[in-house]
Amino acid sequence: MTDFEPSSEEVEALFEQLDREAEEMGYHLNPDADFTEDLVRGLLVNERRYGYRACPCRLASGDRDDDLDIICPCDYRDPDLNEYGACYCALYVSEEVLAGEREPGPVPERRPSPEVRERAARSLTSPSAESISSLSYPVWRCRVCGYLCARDEPPGVCPICKAEMDRFERFI
Amino acid sequence: MTDFEPSSEEVEALFEQLDREAEEMGYHLNPDADFTEDLVRGLLVNERRYGYRACPCRLASGDRDDDLDIICPCDYRDPDLNEYGACYCALYVSEEVLAGEREPGPVPERRPSPEVRERAARSLTSPSAESISSLSYPVWRCRVCGYLCARDEPPGVCPICKAEMDRFERFI
Amino acid sequence: MTDFEPSSEEVEALFEQLDREAEEMGYHLNPDADFTEDLVRGLLVNERRYGYRACPCRLASGDRDDDLDIICPCDYRDPDLNEYGACYCALYVSEEVLAGEREPGPVPERRPSPEVRERAARSLTSPSAESISSLSYPVWRCRVCGYLCARDEPPGVCPICKAEMDRFERFI
Repeated sequence: MTDFEPSSEEVEALFEQLDREAEEMGYHLNPDADFTEDLVRGLLVNERRYGYRACPCRLASGDRDDDLDIICPCDYRDPDLNEYGACYCALYVSEEVLAGEREPGPVPERRPSPEVRERAARSLTSPSAESISSLSYPVWRCRVCGYLCARDEPPGVCPICKAEMDRFERFI
Repeated sequence: MTDFEPSSEEVEALFEQLDREAEEMGYHLNPDADFTEDLVRGLLVNERRYGYRACPCRLASGDRDDDLDIICPCDYRDPDLNEYGACYCALYVSEEVLAGEREPGPVPERRPSPEVRERAARSLTSPSAESISSLSYPVWRCRVCGYLCARDEPPGVCPICKAEMDRFERFI
Repeated sequence: MTDFEPSSEEVEALFEQLDREAEEMGYHLNPDADFTEDLVRGLLVNERRYGYRACPCRLASGDRDDDLDIICPCDYRDPDLNEYGACYCALYVSEEVLAGEREPGPVPERRPSPEVRERAARSLTSPSAESISSLSYPVWRCRVCGYLCARDEPPGVCPICKAEMDRFERFI
């Protein structure tokens, strides 16, 4: 736990960075600036507390591996944008919501329970040997936005959504 | 039909947005600013008329599903840039044309006839069951730029060319 | 050979362009501005000399096909960033190196010898007929960053790393 209070300059700088990165790739921050600033402040508090920007609306464990799916932008942002017009926190909203053509719904928690997550991790099977052997490079998938690339290792940062390397999984 | 005449501010704003998005992703607007502004004006007129930015150099039907392939940037822009150095309208030009290393040729209409388009739509087969079953997510393809991503549903906007969700097709 | 000396304006312009493109896609130029400017100057000299921006730290042959893998950003940048925190020239550095969390190591030459490169080129086999026949478009891979897209021909410029069309290879 921490009493860390980010300065308004820090909040503003991250706000602007996230806004720019979002717009460049077709995402949108919530246009309610006060609301969004509170969430950005929460991201900075979590970054100081845990070492990574865990979702400000969920309880993080403090173990990066356990929390990987809820580092913002979380693995659930894009399906929630599609289905509900907003992510779980409503930090990100869809084009329709931004344009006022749709009300953002309440967004139910899509994250599986710890038991289900653990089971899924255990049953994770590698792509079949045949599919691998026929391609010259492995294909990596960003768990946040679905970006695909073929290279020996995933990129340091997803060029589309800026998620870090450990958010990539082997896809083929 | 409409008498809508976009303001010069609206034209300028869309011009700048398209130019920025193009340059960020390695595309280029026609450097002839007057010519390009006329086309941008046509896009705004079509947006008001049809609800989407149908190609200003083609006759749109007014049915979004029928016109999907000619919403700008159209499905034919990228092959035309490769082959002729410009899209059908010459709103977009290739690097070589921009650099004066190549003259943009006349660009023949690449869009198939309505009969051929309809036949193609009918014969569209889903990817084979085997190829699907071996991957953890479906792979989506942007029909405009070929961007691929693996996720439950396509993104709201193509992060590369900004085409909307309904321009994506299931690829694998 | 040439005595071409780029003007400081030319160096500055390319520096800014490379810096912007890098940051937009999650890459970083070396923060040592003097060092980086020297490399950018070397790129401009090579561009004038060879017609393309061959790596300033390697000996180019002057034949674009032979040098394709060392046109900057080279085919080896991304694996070197992952493994050593910097590319061969240290023009590009990783996030960790930029943040001071890691010292860039000496980067050994990853480029295969001419004999090995030639053998690899001869043994290059096309993807199997089956994998091709089941997809509606060929999949292209950027040899620099691994970007994948499905279209009749590769894009004129890689939207992620700005490598030119001839840096793409048929992947599937």
